[in-house]
Amino acid sequence: MIMFNCDYNEGCHPNILKRLVDSNMDQHPGYSEDDLSAHAKELIKKACGRDDVDVHILVGGTQTNMTVISACLRTYQGVISCETGHIARHETGAIEAHGHKVLTIPSGDGKITAEQIKKYCHTHFTDESFEHVVQPGMVYISSPTELGTTYCRKEIEEIRKVCDEYNLYLYLDGARLGYGFASKGNDLDLPFLASVCDVFYIGGTKQGALMGEACVICNDALKKDFRYIIKQNGGMFAKGRLLGIMFEELFSNDLYMELSRHAIAMAEKLAAGMEAAGFKKYAESPTNQQFFCMPDKYGEILAEKYGFSNEGRIDDEHFIARFCTSWATKEENVDALLEDVKKLA
Amino acid sequence: MIMFNCDYNEGCHPNILKRLVDSNMDQHPGYSEDDLSAHAKELIKKACGRDDVDVHILVGGTQTNMTVISACLRTYQGVISCETGHIARHETGAIEAHGHKVLTIPSGDGKITAEQIKKYCHTHFTDESFEHVVQPGMVYISSPTELGTTYCRKEIEEIRKVCDEYNLYLYLDGARLGYGFASKGNDLDLPFLASVCDVFYIGGTKQGALMGEACVICNDALKKDFRYIIKQNGGMFAKGRLLGIMFEELFSNDLYMELSRHAIAMAEKLAAGMEAAGFKKYAESPTNQQFFCMPDKYGEILAEKYGFSNEGRIDDEHFIARFCTSWATKEENVDALLEDVKKLA
Amino acid sequence: MIMFNCDYNEGCHPNILKRLVDSNMDQHPGYSEDDLSAHAKELIKKACGRDDVDVHILVGGTQTNMTVISACLRTYQGVISCETGHIARHETGAIEAHGHKVLTIPSGDGKITAEQIKKYCHTHFTDESFEHVVQPGMVYISSPTELGTTYCRKEIEEIRKVCDEYNLYLYLDGARLGYGFASKGNDLDLPFLASVCDVFYIGGTKQGALMGEACVICNDALKKDFRYIIKQNGGMFAKGRLLGIMFEELFSNDLYMELSRHAIAMAEKLAAGMEAAGFKKYAESPTNQQFFCMPDKYGEILAEKYGFSNEGRIDDEHFIARFCTSWATKEENVDALLEDVKKLA
Amino acid sequence: MIMFNCDYNEGCHPNILKRLVDSNMDQHPGYSEDDLSAHAKELIKKACGRDDVDVHILVGGTQTNMTVISACLRTYQGVISCETGHIARHETGAIEAHGHKVLTIPSGDGKITAEQIKKYCHTHFTDESFEHVVQPGMVYISSPTELGTTYCRKEIEEIRKVCDEYNLYLYLDGARLGYGFASKGNDLDLPFLASVCDVFYIGGTKQGALMGEACVICNDALKKDFRYIIKQNGGMFAKGRLLGIMFEELFSNDLYMELSRHAIAMAEKLAAGMEAAGFKKYAESPTNQQFFCMPDKYGEILAEKYGFSNEGRIDDEHFIARFCTSWATKEENVDALLEDVKKLA
Repeated sequence: MIMFNCDYNEGCHPNILKRLVDSNMDQHPGYSEDDLSAHAKELIKKACGRDDVDVHILVGGTQTNMTVISACLRTYQGVISCETGHIARHETGAIEAHGHKVLTIPSGDGKITAEQIKKYCHTHFTDESFEHVVQPGMVYISSPTELGTTYCRKEIEEIRKVCDEYNLYLYLDGARLGYGFASKGNDLDLPFLASVCDVFYIGGTKQGALMGEACVICNDALKKDFRYIIKQNGGMFAKGRLLGIMFEELFSNDLYMELSRHAIAMAEKLAAGMEAAGFKKYAESPTNQQFFCMPDKYGEILAEKYGFSNEGRIDDEHFIARFCTSWATKEENVDALLEDVKKLA
Repeated sequence: MIMFNCDYNEGCHPNILKRLVDSNMDQHPGYSEDDLSAHAKELIKKACGRDDVDVHILVGGTQTNMTVISACLRTYQGVISCETGHIARHETGAIEAHGHKVLTIPSGDGKITAEQIKKYCHTHFTDESFEHVVQPGMVYISSPTELGTTYCRKEIEEIRKVCDEYNLYLYLDGARLGYGFASKGNDLDLPFLASVCDVFYIGGTKQGALMGEACVICNDALKKDFRYIIKQNGGMFAKGRLLGIMFEELFSNDLYMELSRHAIAMAEKLAAGMEAAGFKKYAESPTNQQFFCMPDKYGEILAEKYGFSNEGRIDDEHFIARFCTSWATKEENVDALLEDVKKLA
Repeated sequence: MIMFNCDYNEGCHPNILKRLVDSNMDQHPGYSEDDLSAHAKELIKKACGRDDVDVHILVGGTQTNMTVISACLRTYQGVISCETGHIARHETGAIEAHGHKVLTIPSGDGKITAEQIKKYCHTHFTDESFEHVVQPGMVYISSPTELGTTYCRKEIEEIRKVCDEYNLYLYLDGARLGYGFASKGNDLDLPFLASVCDVFYIGGTKQGALMGEACVICNDALKKDFRYIIKQNGGMFAKGRLLGIMFEELFSNDLYMELSRHAIAMAEKLAAGMEAAGFKKYAESPTNQQFFCMPDKYGEILAEKYGFSNEGRIDDEHFIARFCTSWATKEENVDALLEDVKKLA
Repeated sequence: MIMFNCDYNEGCHPNILKRLVDSNMDQHPGYSEDDLSAHAKELIKKACGRDDVDVHILVGGTQTNMTVISACLRTYQGVISCETGHIARHETGAIEAHGHKVLTIPSGDGKITAEQIKKYCHTHFTDESFEHVVQPGMVYISSPTELGTTYCRKEIEEIRKVCDEYNLYLYLDGARLGYGFASKGNDLDLPFLASVCDVFYIGGTKQGALMGEACVICNDALKKDFRYIIKQNGGMFAKGRLLGIMFEELFSNDLYMELSRHAIAMAEKLAAGMEAAGFKKYAESPTNQQFFCMPDKYGEILAEKYGFSNEGRIDDEHFIARFCTSWATKEENVDALLEDVKKLA
């Protein structure tokens, strides 16, 4: 079975593995108070072009989202998200479990606009019974989104303006941030995000690490006591050195971007081949997730040899098939898939 | 100013007031462990035709909803509701504050159907990543709804069947229950609700009491330790005798239904008069809330003398105007309004 | 049965009742946005000697405590309380249900000292693993306490100093505030509390109202959006006018203090009579709750005619018996009790 | 610097590391639905002598505790714990953040007795106002405890009886379970725990793994939907295969017990040497944590070369010094410490 069903099927990049082996019996203090973690944080700050951000590395994405969001909001506030946002759909209500409503905005492409957010807030604050309704307190966006699309600078800058107008925090979920950075037409980078977001995270799990998401806090108001909040959420990792190693390596020798570029090259090849074989794209994604309208009969055949995910039905004979590439995707596997695909269509 | 903006503008029915005065200096134990409360509960049980239900009287609706729903659900479960449901829109996220997502279903008339619920549940339980999504654990419906519409027996019975199929609790919010019972075409009654719901509440606040909602627990699994849950939610009322008096009086001498019939008669008169004067109904409501497409210019004029609520814009020149009648509505006030309305159109 | 078991056995003072009757059919907007509520708040502000405090009237004590405390604390913070504090013992974990630990300090008399609080905070902030421990964020005290004792100015001022040093909010639960003000040796008053507390509440339920606790917010940082928080906690009372009436009457014509003085006079008479009859005080309380070491055999006899509460065992033959007086206590009932008591000892 | 300050200073046992390297580029499904995880669970079930338990491997201890405890309790219930229990002291209120009070019982040695629990429950359920108090719903014990002490079969069996009597779940935190099993006088083993506990966990992080705690659910009532709960708590680890590898290796070739025995041998040597050098034990621990009464002056000297933790002051001149050994402790390091210690005393 060759798997394209997600971007975390393999372990980690060999550089990381080597470092794990080499440092294994070194003694370090726990809870990310070690030198490796400190170094990783320095590298990330440098990459963000800012000394004054706080960096915390957590184990996983849902944990990061629930920790950040509950740290930002007051009890009666909610977080604005695209209706397909990860926090709205795929975290078993972790945000609600922390007491906060996810305020969803409809979208066809996984993105929300400044105008939509502005309208949402305007409606709230001009409603006669506004105190009976959850108050928007922050905006959550992902880039890339769940549908593989990405934001550009202008879009995020406009969202920032609305956030300032309505006193909302802006949080960007970058589980696949590098895959966005490496995609065609991208104009985002870390210094930009550090200048425009109150907080964002740089994904490790899907980008070559065994685990780990690096949360970058840019707004001073959110820095105080953040480690208490991590601990209370079960996110204070005992052997924090491991998280340090992940990001030390990813942020050395341009590894993070190198791996990202590889995933995108593989995604582009896969997409071109599928289209050449007659498969229609379901969504226009420039990143490592590619969505196709898959006839059921072909889906069944491909599923015998390949892993990919079913993201819902389109009609009685088609479903949405998602194929992911990653830092670890072997070109020979893409080639094998494209060979088999050609035979179908 | 004559107020039609809601159904809780006045105090309470004189019978209740008299009873309050007469019993004022009697000594009773606190926390609803008094004889008056016991009697009220007996009357409600009798009206439900069942000895084996548990009755708890709470102060208000949001408090009742959050107490009941959090008592029913496990931590990872959510409650299915119409997107215009009170818990989804007008409780400042009280359900989410208890850790539970409100799983909304779209609707034009404030009602949801058995088929919609079934489809929602089917989608959930057949999703590959179902464990990453909030599990539906109960269904919340109101009758009358926020839009004044009502359910009939058949609709609720069908919902019950889906609840049984997917192991969901069924909870009915009856903040305006009597106004539904008294409405044209109604075929619901308390014994029916007690037979089909796991739990429901009979509204007092909007139906002639100073306050109080009588929560009827029909499912044995939900009875145990309910008073702990009330207390933890800040809902254990010290002078519970007052809540007892409210429902003793409402459920004596057919008062509850008598007051309900009055409100409906007033609503029908108001609606007929408005329509006669050329105002279009925005929604078809047989109960005490009447919704009209109100031209802005007429709205402004009426607002000088009458209270009514603005429920959102229809277009650039019209908004939804809601007029409520209640147990306390004076016919002369309806007449005055209709006189003035005639002059406009 | 004559009840001394608590201070909320009766309804309310006749002035309040009269006002309820007189205003019953007036139309008022809901949710405490009516004139009566506005007036009540003005009276309270005046009594506090400050225009710049915010006043919110909630239905009950537990509701007020959980609303205030959760409004003050960040997620990882806890509230320091005497181990016998109401929030620590008798609210079914309502504070924990809001996510916050009650950090208890031992005490023999229901009070905690500035020094104890200082030591607690010092220990926390100098602990190596402080981030793994709940951070103290506020101090909760009651006056009178659960044991009937009271704080004096100097004690509260010293606590205030420690709060300033460690950045803690100071909250005073005044469920029986008037009974404290009327007690021998008292030097507290509303202007003092308004100057020293971040927030406190003036109890109504136990002091002559049907219900209602007036929460006074003195610290600007806590004022914003408080009504959202009330609503989310199920505490937004529909017919807020009733709460307004309670405090309008209590704060007119010195009624609040007049009723308080009556309760204290009755308590002093009761205590003197019990002691004269040979019953030993269990605790030294100058307020309306009186605690005695009650031999089981006498307790049984008295319980046939009188209500009082058993607050725990002292030894194999004695328990703590609490007798409460209140605004409503009839002197003839105290006399009857003392007559019967004399016969025993 | 040689570290004895905790038992998670190093990475993992070489067998685990080798396996990580060998399997690194294999493709596996995420979220612990892979073959390695399945195999690890089989090995643990076999070690427990039961096919019918459910095993879930989570990343860390606090996460496991908060997930298990919130899965067991109803909203108004609390968990009984020793006052020095990890959940009571060192999890930044994670249990309270889930809405539950930790009901503490005093203890000198980190253990609580069946009798104490029985008395606590008896007091609760016979209290007149029991519904105003948090209901005990489960018992949390650790073995080894925070003070290095252990339970024996008889003690746990007696606790089980009380749990049955009062309908409490019994949960054992086994963060250092192997170090307990390998200690002198131990009569516990996995089959016993699986027969007596409703749920317990086998620690990996402190016992030779990079991370991971294997939660064993023995009570059928707790098995349903547990993965939803893990996900909602941010504990669903993407690359679950890693957790599988940890426990596959630990539970192959008797590695878990072999490493445990090593740690105990080192602890015994360390303790004997310290005592020989005149240092008094602060607590009698047969496991890998050793507590000494450390004069401040010697503590300062040792701290230049050795890491150990300060667990609080004893008097003006002494503090409690904790030295931990582990699976990774090098005998040469213990020897070095003992050499230096000899020179002091």
